[in-house]
Amino acid sequence: MDHTYRLVISCPDRVGIVARVSQFVADQGGWLTEANYHADAENNWFFMRNEIRADSLRMGVDACRSAFAPIAAEYGMQWELVDSSVKRKVVILASHASHCIADILHRWHSGELDCDIPCVISNHENLRSMVEWHGIPFEYVAIDADNKAPAHARIMALTGDYKADCVVLARYMQIIQPEFCREYTGRMINIHHSFLPSFIGANPYQKAFDRGVKLIGATCHYVTEQLDEGPIIEQDVIRVSHRHSKDDLVRLGKDVEKSVLARALRNHLEDRVLVLGNKTVVFD
Amino acid sequence: MDHTYRLVISCPDRVGIVARVSQFVADQGGWLTEANYHADAENNWFFMRNEIRADSLRMGVDACRSAFAPIAAEYGMQWELVDSSVKRKVVILASHASHCIADILHRWHSGELDCDIPCVISNHENLRSMVEWHGIPFEYVAIDADNKAPAHARIMALTGDYKADCVVLARYMQIIQPEFCREYTGRMINIHHSFLPSFIGANPYQKAFDRGVKLIGATCHYVTEQLDEGPIIEQDVIRVSHRHSKDDLVRLGKDVEKSVLARALRNHLEDRVLVLGNKTVVFD
Amino acid sequence: MDHTYRLVISCPDRVGIVARVSQFVADQGGWLTEANYHADAENNWFFMRNEIRADSLRMGVDACRSAFAPIAAEYGMQWELVDSSVKRKVVILASHASHCIADILHRWHSGELDCDIPCVISNHENLRSMVEWHGIPFEYVAIDADNKAPAHARIMALTGDYKADCVVLARYMQIIQPEFCREYTGRMINIHHSFLPSFIGANPYQKAFDRGVKLIGATCHYVTEQLDEGPIIEQDVIRVSHRHSKDDLVRLGKDVEKSVLARALRNHLEDRVLVLGNKTVVFD
Amino acid sequence: MDHTYRLVISCPDRVGIVARVSQFVADQGGWLTEANYHADAENNWFFMRNEIRADSLRMGVDACRSAFAPIAAEYGMQWELVDSSVKRKVVILASHASHCIADILHRWHSGELDCDIPCVISNHENLRSMVEWHGIPFEYVAIDADNKAPAHARIMALTGDYKADCVVLARYMQIIQPEFCREYTGRMINIHHSFLPSFIGANPYQKAFDRGVKLIGATCHYVTEQLDEGPIIEQDVIRVSHRHSKDDLVRLGKDVEKSVLARALRNHLEDRVLVLGNKTVVFD
Repeated sequence: MDHTYRLVISCPDRVGIVARVSQFVADQGGWLTEANYHADAENNWFFMRNEIRADSLRMGVDACRSAFAPIAAEYGMQWELVDSSVKRKVVILASHASHCIADILHRWHSGELDCDIPCVISNHENLRSMVEWHGIPFEYVAIDADNKAPAHARIMALTGDYKADCVVLARYMQIIQPEFCREYTGRMINIHHSFLPSFIGANPYQKAFDRGVKLIGATCHYVTEQLDEGPIIEQDVIRVSHRHSKDDLVRLGKDVEKSVLARALRNHLEDRVLVLGNKTVVFD
Repeated sequence: MDHTYRLVISCPDRVGIVARVSQFVADQGGWLTEANYHADAENNWFFMRNEIRADSLRMGVDACRSAFAPIAAEYGMQWELVDSSVKRKVVILASHASHCIADILHRWHSGELDCDIPCVISNHENLRSMVEWHGIPFEYVAIDADNKAPAHARIMALTGDYKADCVVLARYMQIIQPEFCREYTGRMINIHHSFLPSFIGANPYQKAFDRGVKLIGATCHYVTEQLDEGPIIEQDVIRVSHRHSKDDLVRLGKDVEKSVLARALRNHLEDRVLVLGNKTVVFD
Repeated sequence: MDHTYRLVISCPDRVGIVARVSQFVADQGGWLTEANYHADAENNWFFMRNEIRADSLRMGVDACRSAFAPIAAEYGMQWELVDSSVKRKVVILASHASHCIADILHRWHSGELDCDIPCVISNHENLRSMVEWHGIPFEYVAIDADNKAPAHARIMALTGDYKADCVVLARYMQIIQPEFCREYTGRMINIHHSFLPSFIGANPYQKAFDRGVKLIGATCHYVTEQLDEGPIIEQDVIRVSHRHSKDDLVRLGKDVEKSVLARALRNHLEDRVLVLGNKTVVFD
Repeated sequence: MDHTYRLVISCPDRVGIVARVSQFVADQGGWLTEANYHADAENNWFFMRNEIRADSLRMGVDACRSAFAPIAAEYGMQWELVDSSVKRKVVILASHASHCIADILHRWHSGELDCDIPCVISNHENLRSMVEWHGIPFEYVAIDADNKAPAHARIMALTGDYKADCVVLARYMQIIQPEFCREYTGRMINIHHSFLPSFIGANPYQKAFDRGVKLIGATCHYVTEQLDEGPIIEQDVIRVSHRHSKDDLVRLGKDVEKSVLARALRNHLEDRVLVLGNKTVVFD
């Protein structure tokens, strides 16, 4: 992948933001390879993502950040200048199901997913061999009714030790503690196996089967303290019919889950997902 | 369209049903142009639809019905033998929105939809000219807070006078009285402008916009006394993004609504939709 | 729809274009409601579309054009500043098939399609009543083997008389003369009933049926002198199976054709489609 | 998976086939869990697939085959009675690309794909470790311009030694010798990285990029001696736009390729794909 800097901004909307930011980029010699803008009329909020060829900038990334800070302050911006060559550390939490994690690991292994995976944490041992074949440490943290607090503490400690920038719940199936949610606000991604807001909570395929829906889906969202209520990053569906049993829905749904998670994670890692309130702007 | 008879059956499942029914059809010289079967393992129920070339049968449709009755009784079948040359009478209830009804009327006018449309009933006058251009009577029945009972009575009387076999709620937007629901059980079709069970009730596009979903949908279902809870016939979705306003969702959703309704109505008219409990078998 | 000006630009790519254009817009007080950018790395070409609230600009549209001309010249831009309140005149050419034209007319009639339709031209009389019900003149121009030249001359004269900005071939099914193609380069839209480049030319549904494809499609493209080879604006597909006859493909394909044409035409009318060589940038 | 027998039939169409076959099944006490029928009106050919609970049949599978043979002879049937408990042996040929084979191996490993994989053959070494981790022998057969004949002979010998029932070309990228095609007629499956018949042959993503299509696809088909011309089993597409480079098309296409191949292979292994001429009936 080409080395770029990503200048990602959100702020109250007003006249002249694009001009000011673009002039700044041009003044540094910045060559835009991609630029995206969105004006949210309802909230009067502005979103912007500029991807700039690293070799075109006249100053280094830190100098560039310093130079941009006064503009950001003037416009009240939330902003980042991200160096694409610094790989994010993505810690994956998994349970027994293998489809999502196998998909992520293969994308990573084949160079499609631009991140590091410092470890996988699971409350089951069955995925250890698959994970370790990829050269990734596997951390087993058992969870049962009696040890929830220490188990959660252990998981938080591990994500800290491994310096996770991002946590992916790859069908982890355990409730996340509020403090863990808060620590990784906007950086913890869950894949839910229904087309939210339909079938929140447990056993969505059984519920979908019982309701007789003609499409089933999956939803990737940032985790918040409200179960399955966080900002949606990506969703997709697949057609089903009366011919499909509940087990068929589970099987067909797996393919949707893994592709939805892969797309969402890719967009997150490329800084394409911006959050306002409980909604996302996805510059894909 | 070719002239056929449709033998549509549902009954408790057991060994030998297909053999018995198929032998009956073969004994009459019946040439199958299409045959569909479904065994519902959960409910131990069997569904069957045979489409038979009319010119291949050695007896008329009434004689055929009489001949089949003992078999049906033996197996405890719910069944119909439908003559495809007898067009169903479909009464359409509409409100102000034109997209679904314009779509149905054009499909009917161009010969794609095999039914009669004896009248359109609406609580607004704006669609009169469009309906009458198609040579179809337009019946205006105003509904307001003060006249609900007589208005509903008038609508039921009209559907009776026009001998409706089927009622289509083409974005009618009024609650249907329980007795009307019961009279047309399995024969009254509604198009709801969301991907049910998400966003039941009023203003689903606003709700979808507020939740930030990445796909919006529409659902066609048989009307029951529980609002938006009847057996689902067909659903579909369309992708949306942060770029779309609530009005965009309304506009994009129209295309989904009309295509979902058209597919569901076609399948209903071809006797491809069988109901068990709150679920459908759709032999498409 | 809100009153906006659309500044649409394509030019050789270099550093500073966005800054320069955005500064120009900001200097006039221009409030961006939407902004899209694309850098084509292969051709080193830059594309830009700015949608600006008309009431935010300090000068009128003509003054704005004059003020922008020097910038455009400096950067070698092809550009337009379009006033969204000036409706395009879209002349539709149709043949016998009604599905595309009925769809366009209903979208126009219900206010969804922001254009004028000064006339419909057809080589069949069957659509006259439908067109005239919408209050649109219907021009019948017979075409047969003996009168091709005068018929084409008549059609070109009519599009001139009606001051067409855009010509839509709504399943017109006649070869367009080269001079007519050239006159409406980038402004004449055809809907082809296959997923191009599969099944170029006549009878694509028969060819698709014979090949046994599992999806059929439709393609909307700008017309060039090479049959079915022009820049593609939009495509879509629908699933088919062994159960579908060739007539079923024709029927199912109609729904794809009309939705693909509607989306392409809308994007064209909103100046979202930019052409470079034989490819399009579609800022949707 | 439940233990079933699959009675799969194709023959000239006539009155009474379903009755005769169903009566045979019922006479043996056969409980149908699924039954599919298709009458091809164009070719006057009939297709049938019955799935029968193994524990319901009064005779063993061999006795059942003997008992059915006279019926098959009378109707001129091509037929099979397949025991679902006998796993097919699927030999996979792969090249350098890992996405399709990783997907198949994971589905097999997680129990989703009901077959044996006795070996993987490749002309590159890079996938050895992945394959061997799954406990599957990896056979390296180099192919270059000088050794084509012995290499192909070696591959045919290996598929014979491993008793392959089915050969999957998982992006193998080498021309298959005619005699190999003939030996595995209807049992050798290829995934082609375009929406056939568009972009036959090499570099389809480059061709798709150059043509500016708005959807790219993949096609799974039985291999015949005519390159990319065999009977199509499954196809699918994914939306692309001007924002996508040729490399993006390659990346996005991978997901379509692997899901199309997985669906086609599953249907093949469940005896759901029947071939007539160059077309397939897929009872999914």
